[in-house]
Amino acid sequence: MDRIPILRMGKFLLVTIQIDLYDRLATNLETDLVQMVNKTGAKGVLIDISALSIVDSFMGRILGNIGSMSKIMDAETVVVGMQPAVAITLIELGLELKGVHTALNVERGMDLLMHKIDLTDETVQDEDSTE
Amino acid sequence: MDRIPILRMGKFLLVTIQIDLYDRLATNLETDLVQMVNKTGAKGVLIDISALSIVDSFMGRILGNIGSMSKIMDAETVVVGMQPAVAITLIELGLELKGVHTALNVERGMDLLMHKIDLTDETVQDEDSTE
Repeated sequence: MDRIPILRMGKFLLVTIQIDLYDRLATNLETDLVQMVNKTGAKGVLIDISALSIVDSFMGRILGNIGSMSKIMDAETVVVGMQPAVAITLIELGLELKGVHTALNVERGMDLLMHKIDLTDETVQDEDSTE
Repeated sequence: MDRIPILRMGKFLLVTIQIDLYDRLATNLETDLVQMVNKTGAKGVLIDISALSIVDSFMGRILGNIGSMSKIMDAETVVVGMQPAVAITLIELGLELKGVHTALNVERGMDLLMHKIDLTDETVQDEDSTE
């Protein structure tokens, strides 16, 4: 397999990472995600990593990259389903996943995204009303 | 990896199959799914196979099994994201995926499930009202 499927769910995109990412798979995922955000106008990206029991610095960097890329494309990224051991490893590796939100599971991740989008919409409206 | 993650999304469960299922993985998936349906009271199961470019009779049988098991647990199964080549192979193999619904993508699959659940609810109400 050289592509991880990206599922569109309303305003959000969902990616389930089930296997260790190697170079080409990671690059493809980054490219595909940015293109999907562009094509669908998605406001949020959910990345489920519940299947991963270990994580290395490469994976941490990829998650960070995806977060930064999505941010530039005006979409928030939420990493969901992180196992406790993975959280420990990430911090021990010194990877804080800056620019990436986290939530316990997909449902909470969706709630978080809904909340963020609502807030963004309100801010835009506020800015409009002061003009 | 010996488990495929099952994501809960409201009333539905979502499974993304990204790699070829071997014996233990398939058995685990069946067991996990039935247990999740039982635990969460899910009314529908969405199985995304968009990452699969080939399918064999084993995979076809597993999909059929999942459909039948979910049905007994009062949940509908929808297979989504099937690639054209996979559809051709399934029919050539003589596997009709009985008891399993199909939809083009996750969003349409969810719509289908919503529709089915609405219909079921209405039927129940109708039955109630005639008593």
